[in-house]
Amino acid sequence: MIKVFKIGGNVVDNPEALSAFIADFVRVDGPKILVHGGGKEATRLSAALGIETTMVKGRRVTDRATLDVVTMVYCGLVNKRIVSLLQAAGCNALGLSGADGNAIRATRRPVKDVDYGYVGDISVDGVNTALLQGLVEGGITPVMCAINHDGAGTLLNCNADSVASAVAKALAQVDGEVELTFCFEMEGVMADINNPDSLITSIDSAVYPALVADGTVSGGMLPKLENAFEALRAGVSKVIIRSAAEIATPSGTVITL
Amino acid sequence: MIKVFKIGGNVVDNPEALSAFIADFVRVDGPKILVHGGGKEATRLSAALGIETTMVKGRRVTDRATLDVVTMVYCGLVNKRIVSLLQAAGCNALGLSGADGNAIRATRRPVKDVDYGYVGDISVDGVNTALLQGLVEGGITPVMCAINHDGAGTLLNCNADSVASAVAKALAQVDGEVELTFCFEMEGVMADINNPDSLITSIDSAVYPALVADGTVSGGMLPKLENAFEALRAGVSKVIIRSAAEIATPSGTVITL
Repeated sequence: MIKVFKIGGNVVDNPEALSAFIADFVRVDGPKILVHGGGKEATRLSAALGIETTMVKGRRVTDRATLDVVTMVYCGLVNKRIVSLLQAAGCNALGLSGADGNAIRATRRPVKDVDYGYVGDISVDGVNTALLQGLVEGGITPVMCAINHDGAGTLLNCNADSVASAVAKALAQVDGEVELTFCFEMEGVMADINNPDSLITSIDSAVYPALVADGTVSGGMLPKLENAFEALRAGVSKVIIRSAAEIATPSGTVITL
Repeated sequence: MIKVFKIGGNVVDNPEALSAFIADFVRVDGPKILVHGGGKEATRLSAALGIETTMVKGRRVTDRATLDVVTMVYCGLVNKRIVSLLQAAGCNALGLSGADGNAIRATRRPVKDVDYGYVGDISVDGVNTALLQGLVEGGITPVMCAINHDGAGTLLNCNADSVASAVAKALAQVDGEVELTFCFEMEGVMADINNPDSLITSIDSAVYPALVADGTVSGGMLPKLENAFEALRAGVSKVIIRSAAEIATPSGTVITL
């Protein structure tokens, strides 16, 4: 069984949260892979360099200068910070962009109404499962950022949630059991967003339509849960949506078919 | 036999030179490792961010802000550029900082007359030969930058020549034969620096003292050759000092014991 975890800006941008996450993450038993987002450091570096940041539908429009910025921040600053802290905590982490060992090959997003520039989309068959399995079997924990390559020498800025999903789905095709955990700023899916005691501990495909119909699942939770069910249908055993706190202890919303 | 190559700013900073080097490097037979310096991009990024660059005896004084800059440029921009171009050319490259897989552990340089900040020195026993051998045996070409870690969560800026030497020496202790090639801006050691036809094709420890005594080897070549002999005494089979051009073809000055 391999566990794939995804953390985003709320952990990566906060030294205390990152430090706490790392202390817990090293205690997660068994083979594991960490996928991280970039957080706000790319936006800050762009601003300091006078490069304008343009977001369309939550995705960063990535021109050549912005690609250099995200490559520096995600593959360099953030990835190596996480890897060195994990190493110090006793976890044999190894950072990967998609270019490294051809870990993930992406396709540049075609220009339709928006030209996202050097933004890539990935599919399950772009994931080099042999590389990831080899590392994990060697006791190494891959730490993956969301910069991938097109195989022709160009790096592409991808979405970290999509990287985590693709890695989990691809491993599910070759490895028996894969668990995929998305960490975000809440405890999980809440029955009442204003009530911190209203965590829904499990959702399956039988109850899901009712939660959508009564409005419990709405807004930003909808794509998260759609992605979760898509991963489950692709063979992932279990998807968990939870906070990054105390990651070694089961918590959050467990989603199954 | 493993071949360790080191390239510096004259290749890394020049897109045409890098592209030509990569086309030749993929044609080098057998297991190989590439170590790269940083070039001038770190200095340019520092300048753009208003961070002052201070060099003392050829080493960059690395305060916290400068460490972030070199981590972004060396581990991010430069390393991933080289890796993605090698992948495109058919070489299964994988970028490593010293933190990745605990590839190289360094020691922060003690403050004597100069406080270099986050600058590290490495020794042969800081090199994780098992990791490098495992990658190389798996058909992967490690591409190493000179940012290493102290094992306690701190990254350290090291010298790329020293990284290449330490990697070669460490592998020589566990692997039979190791060849170490330093690429620089000249054809090799020249009998007359003003005569491009005066390349000295081989130097051994018997002829070396005479070359020093008559002034043929002087200035910046002295430490290069001292390092070469030190590597040879530590078990490296052969050290080559040469230009980065046509790297798949034997050339330059071959140094042996």
